[in-house]
Amino acid sequence: MIIDQTRLPGALVELSLTDLPAMVEAIQSLRVRGAPAIGVAGAIGLAVLATRAATDNPATFDAVIAEAAQALATARPTAVNLAWAVQRVLAAGQIGGASPSVRAATMRAEAIAIVDEDIAMCASIGAHGASLLRGGMSVLTHCNAGSLATAGIGTALAPVYTMYARGDVIRVFADETRPLLQGARLTAWELDRAGVPVTLLTDGMAASVMRSGVIDAVLVGADRIAANGDVANKIGTYGVAVLARHHGIPFYVLAPTSTLDPHTLHGDTMHIEMRDGDEVRNLGGVTTAPAGVMVYNPAFDVTPAALVTAIITDRGVFHPPFHFAS
Amino acid sequence: MIIDQTRLPGALVELSLTDLPAMVEAIQSLRVRGAPAIGVAGAIGLAVLATRAATDNPATFDAVIAEAAQALATARPTAVNLAWAVQRVLAAGQIGGASPSVRAATMRAEAIAIVDEDIAMCASIGAHGASLLRGGMSVLTHCNAGSLATAGIGTALAPVYTMYARGDVIRVFADETRPLLQGARLTAWELDRAGVPVTLLTDGMAASVMRSGVIDAVLVGADRIAANGDVANKIGTYGVAVLARHHGIPFYVLAPTSTLDPHTLHGDTMHIEMRDGDEVRNLGGVTTAPAGVMVYNPAFDVTPAALVTAIITDRGVFHPPFHFAS
Repeated sequence: MIIDQTRLPGALVELSLTDLPAMVEAIQSLRVRGAPAIGVAGAIGLAVLATRAATDNPATFDAVIAEAAQALATARPTAVNLAWAVQRVLAAGQIGGASPSVRAATMRAEAIAIVDEDIAMCASIGAHGASLLRGGMSVLTHCNAGSLATAGIGTALAPVYTMYARGDVIRVFADETRPLLQGARLTAWELDRAGVPVTLLTDGMAASVMRSGVIDAVLVGADRIAANGDVANKIGTYGVAVLARHHGIPFYVLAPTSTLDPHTLHGDTMHIEMRDGDEVRNLGGVTTAPAGVMVYNPAFDVTPAALVTAIITDRGVFHPPFHFAS
Repeated sequence: MIIDQTRLPGALVELSLTDLPAMVEAIQSLRVRGAPAIGVAGAIGLAVLATRAATDNPATFDAVIAEAAQALATARPTAVNLAWAVQRVLAAGQIGGASPSVRAATMRAEAIAIVDEDIAMCASIGAHGASLLRGGMSVLTHCNAGSLATAGIGTALAPVYTMYARGDVIRVFADETRPLLQGARLTAWELDRAGVPVTLLTDGMAASVMRSGVIDAVLVGADRIAANGDVANKIGTYGVAVLARHHGIPFYVLAPTSTLDPHTLHGDTMHIEMRDGDEVRNLGGVTTAPAGVMVYNPAFDVTPAALVTAIITDRGVFHPPFHFAS
């Protein structure tokens, strides 16, 4: 069961995903999005399908979970958590001689462990990130790396929630994050709902707000972090990093350890998903550009490690130079 | 008569503006926008109202044109051209002892002269700007400083049209320019219509395109340029300037001499129009953010002269340090 994030902020709709095509569609069309959340969705999805196949014979069971794992793990190419979580659940079910029902139960337990770890991971990122901030500060964030992007209190927004819970209020300036407006639709919605003061701005306004002196730090999430600290995240993040550097504002990347990809040595070799141009030409059914005009629409960009002040994971605060090993 | 730019690219609608409230409304609601175009609209508007009052007695005529000039000149606060053009037409009608009809005719001639000068100004900017570019280059632009923003071939886009006419094709990457999407709705529309190759991108993608190495120059217009070369232009321009500097890409500002405001010594004292938050919370009737969420929505930002490679006006190419005197 997921919250259909494409319906926010207009409606809070929960969807029950009962078969593989529905799960893949939900991930590809961003009904569930945010690297940790799609990892959790992939893990739970595979466990659900394994449970439903638990009464099949071993050969059929193997075929069902192999097909499901393949389709779920590749539903989106850039976030490393998705393949990681699906692989973990798949591997948990590889028990020599065990029946499908025992294997499915093991996979279900592994998926639930991923959810629990995700919640703990968020709390840990929140605690580490809070050590870099003080109540009364204002931060700028891009896209949504909040509670909607995880099973817990988020990654980039985790320190904000952690501090809010103890009475240290931080104001969040949220880039709306075109084309899909995760900042406007999701970040503004979840912070507003939680009582955290939030100011929405268009992506082009971030430079102006920084120049005005009110931004104390930038907090963003990540979809994949290379061994050298290069960060793939929502398109627009790299520009925010350049602007933060220009204005002398710390640029913090907050992400779970599972986002670290030591096998990718640097960002230049990361595969960047290109999405349909209609996401840029339209918005919620409204045409915003001439039909058929050529469009550039990468889903992500890569922020070089040199622009990153610190990477905060559930294991602590890492400063440059970054060297993430397996 | 204006093209209602709020209806583009869906529909090409021409509006006849016959009274002062309609003229002011058209300027304030951006049915006509672009610093030179609103200057022309203010000038023609005042001349039309003077012509209609030409049969009144001198005292009534004076009252009508004074009220109209005041309302038109202040319809938007940041663009210097508007007050400048209205003042020129008003001054043309200040002829001691002349009848209202003679004064109105003089004002009409002055307004038409402003239109003709605007067309010539665009051509001149095009010629000067073209000296900085070569066919086959790609440029990035923000907002719309094209033919829709002037009576001629535009300011920032003038070199593109000038070169296209002689067979030197330049590809334009157009920032969509939230919140009002002038890049998507207007720049992409007018370039596409003229046959100039154009690629649309969201504002947050500009950094990524620059990093990919395809952008040879940035071309933007201006709403007001201070004596020291600080540039007020559409919100988001400053961020593009910072990104261009970071990537070693020339950042050119193209604007008519009337945009220069020698009485404003630097950008910090420029009045920046703040617009309604619903422009950010909504798009074409679609709600993109939680109702009532706090919004930051300045219409303009100021790019410090230090980030400007050259300012191109109808009088030539100016390099830093800039010193614009009256």
